[in-house]
Amino acid sequence: MSTSETGRFTPTPIGFSEEELALVTYDRDGLVGAIVQDASDRAVLMFAWMNGESLRRTLETGRTWFWSRSRQEFWCKGETSGDRQYVRSVHYDCDGDALLVTVDQEGAGACHTGNRSCFYRAFGDTVANP
Amino acid sequence: MSTSETGRFTPTPIGFSEEELALVTYDRDGLVGAIVQDASDRAVLMFAWMNGESLRRTLETGRTWFWSRSRQEFWCKGETSGDRQYVRSVHYDCDGDALLVTVDQEGAGACHTGNRSCFYRAFGDTVANP
Repeated sequence: MSTSETGRFTPTPIGFSEEELALVTYDRDGLVGAIVQDASDRAVLMFAWMNGESLRRTLETGRTWFWSRSRQEFWCKGETSGDRQYVRSVHYDCDGDALLVTVDQEGAGACHTGNRSCFYRAFGDTVANP
Repeated sequence: MSTSETGRFTPTPIGFSEEELALVTYDRDGLVGAIVQDASDRAVLMFAWMNGESLRRTLETGRTWFWSRSRQEFWCKGETSGDRQYVRSVHYDCDGDALLVTVDQEGAGACHTGNRSCFYRAFGDTVANP
């Protein structure tokens, strides 16, 4: 890690082979789920969707690229908010239908609500546990 | 945590309200993605699918219940393998379309391959990073 014009981190491309890319499977919409985990303390920050092109962009640029199902367009996390994610590694699971992206998270966090993690609410928060 | 007849952990139900359950949204197959994270060191162990009934069973029993898309049936993690998961908490994300389940993992791990985590392969493992 080194400083850059934008903050504490610099994007670093991730090496990959076409053989590895071919191990990822996509659903009938051409998407695979991507879990984003903070490298600093392993907090799970968010869950979003990638298609083949956004996965390739993520690996090639070292920034997280997703596919927005609602807007039907690519988005590079943090381009608007400044809360950029710098990729450390991308794992794929045993059957290739999920991704785990480890990142250095810049800014306040990953969630558009202002929370650091999108998973800021738990069942039982509002009721007494039995 | 206390010992039980099956191992180191005992299942503990998670409190929830119907209002909380109603915040979870499901895809057109009636499913929501569930990330399973180990409470001990925050390793992401696996990703699987739940429907409304498997989420309810998970909360009520304190064990992880998923929906198998290939077999079209419920499965309680570890019933066959012995690698059971005891639920500590279930979070839902900002837009309610993903779950984060924190567990105590019993046995060798979560993956049917024998690996502890299903995410045991990373891009670049087989190629030199640039």
